Amino acid sequence: MTNHLNDFEAAFKEVQKEISKVITSGPSLITGYVSYLTETTGKMMRARAVLACSMNDDGAIPVDAIKFAAAVEVLHLATLVHDDIMDDADTRRGQITLQKRAGKRNAVICGDFLLAAAIREISQIADKDIYKSFDFSRYVQSIALGELRQNINNRNFRMKVFRYLSIIDGKTAALFEASYHAGALAANYDPHIQKLYRRLGRYTGIIFQLTDDCIDYENTSETALKPVQSDYENGVVTMPLIHAFEKEPDLIDKAENNNLTKEEVFEAVKRNNGVEFTHKMAESYYKRAKDILTQLNMPKEKEEILGGLLTKAFVGLKA
Amino acid sequence: MTNHLNDFEAAFKEVQKEISKVITSGPSLITGYVSYLTETTGKMMRARAVLACSMNDDGAIPVDAIKFAAAVEVLHLATLVHDDIMDDADTRRGQITLQKRAGKRNAVICGDFLLAAAIREISQIADKDIYKSFDFSRYVQSIALGELRQNINNRNFRMKVFRYLSIIDGKTAALFEASYHAGALAANYDPHIQKLYRRLGRYTGIIFQLTDDCIDYENTSETALKPVQSDYENGVVTMPLIHAFEKEPDLIDKAENNNLTKEEVFEAVKRNNGVEFTHKMAESYYKRAKDILTQLNMPKEKEEILGGLLTKAFVGLKA
Repeated sequence: MTNHLNDFEAAFKEVQKEISKVITSGPSLITGYVSYLTETTGKMMRARAVLACSMNDDGAIPVDAIKFAAAVEVLHLATLVHDDIMDDADTRRGQITLQKRAGKRNAVICGDFLLAAAIREISQIADKDIYKSFDFSRYVQSIALGELRQNINNRNFRMKVFRYLSIIDGKTAALFEASYHAGALAANYDPHIQKLYRRLGRYTGIIFQLTDDCIDYENTSETALKPVQSDYENGVVTMPLIHAFEKEPDLIDKAENNNLTKEEVFEAVKRNNGVEFTHKMAESYYKRAKDILTQLNMPKEKEEILGGLLTKAFVGLKA
Repeated sequence: MTNHLNDFEAAFKEVQKEISKVITSGPSLITGYVSYLTETTGKMMRARAVLACSMNDDGAIPVDAIKFAAAVEVLHLATLVHDDIMDDADTRRGQITLQKRAGKRNAVICGDFLLAAAIREISQIADKDIYKSFDFSRYVQSIALGELRQNINNRNFRMKVFRYLSIIDGKTAALFEASYHAGALAANYDPHIQKLYRRLGRYTGIIFQLTDDCIDYENTSETALKPVQSDYENGVVTMPLIHAFEKEPDLIDKAENNNLTKEEVFEAVKRNNGVEFTHKMAESYYKRAKDILTQLNMPKEKEEILGGLLTKAFVGLKA
């Protein structure tokens, strides 16, 4: 048992090394800008997911999973870099963002460089037939589409629940799905099992995002490690707000006319139980994800890790 | 003979169709933004290069070369989209740019989407062993590095010739090299022959850029189909200016203090034969490229097409 756990943590350390290698082995000009990112990778839920999904019944993790995990995290960093440009964000996880450090122009290019680095990482394991079915660039496209949808719906205070879910599906869930898919591929599972892993990943991503949306309406900026600016102030419309606006449509006009303060929005969300509504929705995905976990009938520690990630997504990273 | 030429043009039409397919087959949200790009692809020198390099002795072009050519052109479009964000360009080739049409935020994402689409196009031909040696994402990284170097050297009026050449190597020559490399791979040439094609591509790209630099100092905005703003006004330092500043270092201080008008710069370049200097440098690459063409000892029409592209790069696209 301890052995298995050791294997997982050893593999995780390898992923951290691999990510550092990818980020710092570029030309010094690039690494000068992006090497600080190795410190902002957070808990690397996606990398952990790849490794856990790839575990066989003996708890062994195939070497290729390390590269998959590194690729997914580097892609994640690339999207964060471009994301921060679009959000005009000065900080992320308490660190100054690249677009603030180096300017938007340099950040556009550094994001491109990281995106290429992620794809390159995948291509290095692409000799085996099994990986050909991993259409990584399709996931990159889904993420871009989700970001685009979010951007277009900036300050769209009339957004409906189903449209918001389709945004989440791209901007957050696609990369989770990619991670679980990569792990299942590395484990060499049958296509129908792979599908279940992918769905588990997608649900975990949706839950993660919905919980993140709640945190914005629950926490002060210090506890959330997020920029002081709230989603609402950035024009980002999320589930708790969508619910509140559906309950009190009169507020929509006020918001559109810039006559609704952040404080009023927080009160409206509270009054209409926007957070509880969102949490309930996350819970329904959580139950479906739990069912998949049961269905997959995994070895105990594998289920513990994936179940742990699921719970972390559900209760928030602060837990 | 006519048959061979027909094959080339037929293949070229297929590439155009394939590019349209890649650009317009995305989700309507994306295609709504980027479909106009199919009209701005210009003469598609890079696609022509892929096809020509892939021609066998009978003038036949392998089907895979079509996908390679489309991938290279779509990547080119992706870089233009991000480029226009960085240059704050309102027009390109007489068309309104995406960043002007849709805003910088959307343009960042659309560029990412196209970049992923290009890589995806390559992955679709990746089953054959031969293509595994084509490290497309490395070229994407080289291009990003060239762009970054250019950006960092914006308004660097003390830039040296060799540094400028290293910028060109990334931002322009890398994609040409990728095109010639892809064609040579599709043709299934031996590695040492591939190397010659790659070098031919790299030189063609360098020549293309140096000639483009000259055009900025020769033409009025109407004939160049370029934005009215000159490179100098955008802080972009190119070879003719580098030469003029090396001859008259006193001007550097003036430029740095914003005391040098566009007109004075044009006069200084003229007075110091900046265009002639740049043209001479292009000519030395042109001669070396011609030598490679001879060395490769190609069938007549293949040499005509690749020689034609080289000449076009050397005399400028207006020719």
